[in-house]
Amino acid sequence: MSDVRRIVESHSDEFLAQLTDWLRIPSISADPELAPEVRRSAAWLADAFRALGCPVVEIWETAGQPSVFAEWRAADPAAPSVVVYGHHDVQPVDPLELWDHPPFEPTLVGDDLLARGAVDDKGQVAFHLLALRAWFESTGRTAPPVTLKFLIEGEEENGSPNFRALLEEHRKRLPCDAVVVSDTGMWDAETPSVCTGMRGMIHCQIDMHGPDIDLHSGQFGGAIPNPLDALIGLLAGLHDDARHVTLPGFYDDVRPLTTRERELFARLPYDEKEWLATAQSRATYGEEGFTTLERTWARPTCEVHGVWGGYTGHGNKTIVPSDAHAKLSFRLVADQEPLRVKKLLDEYVAASLPAGIDAVVHWSTDGVRPCLTPMDSPALQATVTAMQRTFGGEVLFTREGGSGPEADLGDLLGAPVVFLGVGLPTDRIHAPNERVNFPLLLKGAQATAYLWDELATALRPA
Amino acid sequence: MSDVRRIVESHSDEFLAQLTDWLRIPSISADPELAPEVRRSAAWLADAFRALGCPVVEIWETAGQPSVFAEWRAADPAAPSVVVYGHHDVQPVDPLELWDHPPFEPTLVGDDLLARGAVDDKGQVAFHLLALRAWFESTGRTAPPVTLKFLIEGEEENGSPNFRALLEEHRKRLPCDAVVVSDTGMWDAETPSVCTGMRGMIHCQIDMHGPDIDLHSGQFGGAIPNPLDALIGLLAGLHDDARHVTLPGFYDDVRPLTTRERELFARLPYDEKEWLATAQSRATYGEEGFTTLERTWARPTCEVHGVWGGYTGHGNKTIVPSDAHAKLSFRLVADQEPLRVKKLLDEYVAASLPAGIDAVVHWSTDGVRPCLTPMDSPALQATVTAMQRTFGGEVLFTREGGSGPEADLGDLLGAPVVFLGVGLPTDRIHAPNERVNFPLLLKGAQATAYLWDELATALRPA
Repeated sequence: MSDVRRIVESHSDEFLAQLTDWLRIPSISADPELAPEVRRSAAWLADAFRALGCPVVEIWETAGQPSVFAEWRAADPAAPSVVVYGHHDVQPVDPLELWDHPPFEPTLVGDDLLARGAVDDKGQVAFHLLALRAWFESTGRTAPPVTLKFLIEGEEENGSPNFRALLEEHRKRLPCDAVVVSDTGMWDAETPSVCTGMRGMIHCQIDMHGPDIDLHSGQFGGAIPNPLDALIGLLAGLHDDARHVTLPGFYDDVRPLTTRERELFARLPYDEKEWLATAQSRATYGEEGFTTLERTWARPTCEVHGVWGGYTGHGNKTIVPSDAHAKLSFRLVADQEPLRVKKLLDEYVAASLPAGIDAVVHWSTDGVRPCLTPMDSPALQATVTAMQRTFGGEVLFTREGGSGPEADLGDLLGAPVVFLGVGLPTDRIHAPNERVNFPLLLKGAQATAYLWDELATALRPA
Repeated sequence: MSDVRRIVESHSDEFLAQLTDWLRIPSISADPELAPEVRRSAAWLADAFRALGCPVVEIWETAGQPSVFAEWRAADPAAPSVVVYGHHDVQPVDPLELWDHPPFEPTLVGDDLLARGAVDDKGQVAFHLLALRAWFESTGRTAPPVTLKFLIEGEEENGSPNFRALLEEHRKRLPCDAVVVSDTGMWDAETPSVCTGMRGMIHCQIDMHGPDIDLHSGQFGGAIPNPLDALIGLLAGLHDDARHVTLPGFYDDVRPLTTRERELFARLPYDEKEWLATAQSRATYGEEGFTTLERTWARPTCEVHGVWGGYTGHGNKTIVPSDAHAKLSFRLVADQEPLRVKKLLDEYVAASLPAGIDAVVHWSTDGVRPCLTPMDSPALQATVTAMQRTFGGEVLFTREGGSGPEADLGDLLGAPVVFLGVGLPTDRIHAPNERVNFPLLLKGAQATAYLWDELATALRPA
């Protein structure tokens, strides 16, 4: 057994007690009444870094909830620098009645530690504390092999509204050679894997307006443009029969999957029956020529989330309605730009309107950019090696279909982003009975301790 | 001045008082609490027939509100028989605050008599009472020239749920050579016209179901069939680019417009600007190759009245929704059968579903059949002559785009249906401030008195 593994395991009880203590703080960033708890959570984490002996620990204020910044410089001034991103805030807990144990009273059931934030993301930030301790104890040294800059956000679960401004404000203190994100997971407990990317997204609402009043369809029907009908035509026209998005140029910037990437996806023990059972769907569907994993991880989509308009009550009311609405989003992959897709849809809507129908497309944000770690990135190779040393066997590659602030982080800091995470698809993040496989957190700590050495080598200036 | 006209006008004040009396009764058939008022309205009408000397006057009970039956036989047993259809119930009055005068306190403003039911349909039933009086006074006879069978319904504004059963129950007492309906209108006050038909209709709700739960579109989007998307595709596929309905065979039974009918429509003083102002729409739209009047009167349509599904609240929720719904109807023209169209849509929906999407199409009724009076029908010719004698000048032809029980009436009684009505498009039927042009009611009485003579000649057995 490696020293690191032995040390990590020897501190297991202490680590459980420490994490449990933190998980008791209901740091729900979306609830303004719990703002003091988010602040308490930040203070808890700052104290934990200080207790380890971390030389620089600061609370970074934002217009909303505070982040924690902790910096531990390498002894060698030429050593690479790494920014570690995570978050200390958690999701709301509704509906409370569906929790088997109170969300802020962490409970160990078998190997699972149940609590809000257990895996997303306090557990995965906490294993970094344990990793530091294990690295120092195993080496007997007093400074890490790479300069570590922990930036642990307090508003990730509320859409990170102030994170970009925070990065810009503190940019000078954040130069780095890689960004390590611990907020994702593995394929399953038996399949160690590294996430290499997340889709981006941009979403909007389309409001269509036809006649200024609802009209009697007997009197007017067949001779008045119906905004619901126009909306339906517009939305239907967004896909062709092969489920390609039809916006001209939509795929221009899409980085195609390489043969190697497709082979690697195909090696994952994907079980369609199981996947469908999780989705509670009776079939898969999607863009022709791609597998389910490719469709959800590596291909852009256009999805309609909601449509409403006209008469929707009981019985029947035969009207030509005045208004129609839809909410939709585009999931984007490298190297698509959300604002370019926004422009394409705006142009399409403007060109699709029959006379007598107006439309307004509302975009509430500029979207989230996709991120993708190149397979040949040295930082990725270091991560894979660290995982391989921890778990043994082959390390596979996954992606996430969802979207986070990681691309902005990489772009603003000008560094590659890698993901080291040990969550599982069964962890019920954002849902009642969130949990983490506690032994996997220990593995996360072990892999992280290895990672610093691996990155020190991989990113060493030539 | 003709005797009939002179007599009608001489009774004008009395007629106004009589109609006002009837209009004070709030016979709203849709309101169960007002059932006694609908019954009082029936009794009022029965008394009015008796006061004229009508030999047979009966209240016909139904499972709901009562109809009034009044029969006045011609002296000549070989004379034709005519069923006169109208209704004595009225629409609800909400929103009450939009009425300039209380809906059941009839108020004369200039030539307009304002009250709920003023034109739809008490005013137009009442002019038949005046017509009888004028005919008898002008001829000095004691029996009409045709056998008249008035059947005045009490539930028309509530969808005539018991009318078919009533017709079947009393079928033996209703043999006739023509049905005269007085529940429609003219083109405008200056353009005497006769309505020759109404569109039919059948309506349904489509419920679509995909995954059993709303899914995160980041995790699953692009690989799961989305019921909203399936619904959108299905609805969009119901029309081609020329706005023809695409259901195979949908137009098979449609009786084409003749050149003469199109010419007659084109003679109406249609003003597109005015029509658009009424519709509060900025453009017309519809099936290629047809005018607005043709589209609304003589062409079948498919109209979406409401769509809903997925997330429709504030902000954004990026889901693949579990359910999607739509309400739609088909307006039908002669000789389309509602049940055939139902079958076509059922088949289309079944054939349009992607794997993983279920759909149920709910049809709450068997629909309403279209009706159309042939242009060469002797009863129609008699009606035109009666209108022409009353108004002078050319009598034009209109249709109604909406739907009523008239086709069933004609089919069940095996007789042609003709419309003699003097409502105006500006009468605000079913809306606040319903009104009738009172002088036109007098014209209606005059035309009706002529009509009995005209029908006696036109329908006399050869």
